[in-house]
Amino acid sequence: MAFELTKELTEEIKGLIVAGNVEKLSEFHDNLHFADIAEILEALNIQEATYLVKTLEAEKTSDALMELEEDFREDILKNLSAKEIAEEIEELDTDDAADILNELPQERAENVISEIEDESHAEKIVDLLRYDEDTAGGLMAKELVQVSENWTVAECLNQIKVQAEDVKRVHSIYVVDDTNKLKGRLSLRDLMVSPNDFSISQIYIPKVDFVTVNTESDDVARVMQKYDLEAIPVVDERGKLVGRITIDDIVDYIKDEAEKDYQMAAGISSDVEADDSIIELTKARLPWLVLGLFGGLGSVYIMQGFEEALQHFPILFFFTPLIAAMAGNVGVQSSAIIVQGLANDNVKGSLWDRLVKEIGLSLINGIALGILVILFGLVVGQPPMVTLTIALSMLLVIIFAALIGTFVPIILDKRGIDPAIATGPFITTSNDIFGIFLFFYISKLILGF
Amino acid sequence: MAFELTKELTEEIKGLIVAGNVEKLSEFHDNLHFADIAEILEALNIQEATYLVKTLEAEKTSDALMELEEDFREDILKNLSAKEIAEEIEELDTDDAADILNELPQERAENVISEIEDESHAEKIVDLLRYDEDTAGGLMAKELVQVSENWTVAECLNQIKVQAEDVKRVHSIYVVDDTNKLKGRLSLRDLMVSPNDFSISQIYIPKVDFVTVNTESDDVARVMQKYDLEAIPVVDERGKLVGRITIDDIVDYIKDEAEKDYQMAAGISSDVEADDSIIELTKARLPWLVLGLFGGLGSVYIMQGFEEALQHFPILFFFTPLIAAMAGNVGVQSSAIIVQGLANDNVKGSLWDRLVKEIGLSLINGIALGILVILFGLVVGQPPMVTLTIALSMLLVIIFAALIGTFVPIILDKRGIDPAIATGPFITTSNDIFGIFLFFYISKLILGF
Repeated sequence: MAFELTKELTEEIKGLIVAGNVEKLSEFHDNLHFADIAEILEALNIQEATYLVKTLEAEKTSDALMELEEDFREDILKNLSAKEIAEEIEELDTDDAADILNELPQERAENVISEIEDESHAEKIVDLLRYDEDTAGGLMAKELVQVSENWTVAECLNQIKVQAEDVKRVHSIYVVDDTNKLKGRLSLRDLMVSPNDFSISQIYIPKVDFVTVNTESDDVARVMQKYDLEAIPVVDERGKLVGRITIDDIVDYIKDEAEKDYQMAAGISSDVEADDSIIELTKARLPWLVLGLFGGLGSVYIMQGFEEALQHFPILFFFTPLIAAMAGNVGVQSSAIIVQGLANDNVKGSLWDRLVKEIGLSLINGIALGILVILFGLVVGQPPMVTLTIALSMLLVIIFAALIGTFVPIILDKRGIDPAIATGPFITTSNDIFGIFLFFYISKLILGF
Repeated sequence: MAFELTKELTEEIKGLIVAGNVEKLSEFHDNLHFADIAEILEALNIQEATYLVKTLEAEKTSDALMELEEDFREDILKNLSAKEIAEEIEELDTDDAADILNELPQERAENVISEIEDESHAEKIVDLLRYDEDTAGGLMAKELVQVSENWTVAECLNQIKVQAEDVKRVHSIYVVDDTNKLKGRLSLRDLMVSPNDFSISQIYIPKVDFVTVNTESDDVARVMQKYDLEAIPVVDERGKLVGRITIDDIVDYIKDEAEKDYQMAAGISSDVEADDSIIELTKARLPWLVLGLFGGLGSVYIMQGFEEALQHFPILFFFTPLIAAMAGNVGVQSSAIIVQGLANDNVKGSLWDRLVKEIGLSLINGIALGILVILFGLVVGQPPMVTLTIALSMLLVIIFAALIGTFVPIILDKRGIDPAIATGPFITTSNDIFGIFLFFYISKLILGF
């Protein structure tokens, strides 16, 4: 089962493209899963990939198109005519079709829609375009199997055979009343183990999880994950069944969100990849570096204020990177734990408890690290008073950094701001500045320069 | 559908526990999903939670137990007798049952197994215990629906009705030969739209994705995600069907892995949560802080080597936190992008291309940041030569840090080591030291102190 895209295979396909051997290429595609075809497309250049998409039947390439990186897909679509895009879209489920149309410029999207031959498919897609991408409406597909509560098991089985032709995976069967209001669901298993003359109203499960078209994607993912759902029906404001969301889209969503959080923590805004252009990468990275630079210049300014220490205690200036690193690392650790806790909804207890805990934790870490600093001082023969001053002020910096790292995300969260922005460069930079200030301020108090 | 655990509800349940009102508690549970019951359990203390698990029927609590944080579940299990745990396990799917047994001490697990009344269930669970937790064998469940290639559609439908009683979600039906070798799969849809007298061998899909018991969890997740699978069969070394893995377990796995990567990048080893004990949090955090401390002490040592600069260019020492921050931030950005690219298998092109790209990117960022440093120098009236030296050496530090951040993960990956360990504190610390050394070395070359 393991498909592996070898250099040889890529070369062979490139050769077939040059030779224009459509028959052989088509044969290749017949034996591969669309996800594998997508891998092949990505190994080709735009011209070659476009050739394949244009030449092969849409049935074989449409799903593969959906698996491509967005940028690459857009480049291919640019080379296709509205009619050619419409042909691909005819083969796609409504949710994927709507995603493709959303990626096109307004006017071009309209041209493509007018080229779709299947009126009912086009109507469904247009309906989906109304919804915000970050809502259940933006995630759902129109393909689903629904039955009336008034049918019998036998009628239902027959109807399902018809409806299921259009639906790749059946999952649940949704039960509606005469006005299309969602009443419940029917598990395939229950249907299959029930006598044929039972009425659906006797066997359907009236308790059904659902979301409305306006539910945010984040909440959809949370509900589906919490209740281990593989599909969830979507209703409109009046409770009428309008679509369903399947778990494969949610898996992709969860992964994308995790990657975004990870990038945010690493100081990368907007979703970029290693192979994006230098301009795109710069746009995502430079702003955070500028933030860091301002932090660094802030430290310069602070140290200039403690310039008199240069004369008697220059050693203090050798320790500033250590202090900044400690403040940064502790802050990032604390914020990462809290941000994850908030995301998973398992930050319990009062703010006071948390304060006591963070201080306790910082004391243990700070004292352990302080002992190492003192040992270092003894080994290199630093003046004991200076070493003690460094160790003590480092301890206070660590406590301070832990509190900032813990409470800034909590406060942001309470104000309805995504706490994840408080991780990474933001917390590191502010902790650098405050840490260095605190370090010199305490040193000055003790050493009296 | 939205269940929300209010303070009032928690209090009410605590009250019912104190009053020993089993009937009312049982009623509560009947109306809730197990994931909601798990939320309630986590809002209680161990004694209260244990009381609920002991008092209510296992049918109602077993699935909720699986949703709890591992630590909390272990605490509850400690308070249960082997017989009580066995009762919970009887209600669980084999994969969850095996997970629970894996959490128990060896001897206790054996006692529990001997208390399981359903022999065949116990046997299946024991069989699962043989597999490593990080493999398909460790993830799979024994519950599945399988049919023989020699049956007819009608026979198959009857058999499925029997087998499906034990299986919560049917997904695919797996087709085997007489020796139980996996031959293919049968989609429920195909089965339902086929005439009753067709033979299974006429309608089954011989191409089926599968994994073997020894496939690593990571690869299982990748395959299921790539091919949008909702379940995948697992075969043993001889190709015989032994279990299946469902997507809900993979969703949990993907989320856990993303959290681990995120924590690793933040300098937190082992999976901890905001509500873990101070000792556990310290164990996860202190080692990385010690690493950072050694890095800081390394910087102290390096700066002592450039002590003579103190006399004429003390300003350089004010800039060390800025240099360290830039080196750290750039390194973290570069490594995060590469680590994600490696995980998603989309780092293409040669090492040489990547080298050129990183240098180009660093030049753009470094020059932009250098201009800001020069502006700062002009505003505060620094000697121009010093400002230029700082800007130039910062540029070189940025290039250097980007290269380290990019190539260390690539090298680790080529050697089969998880590149994620190169993110976070590791890269920050080494970049701090090298960055500061480079900064002073170049300054010395130019300014000649």
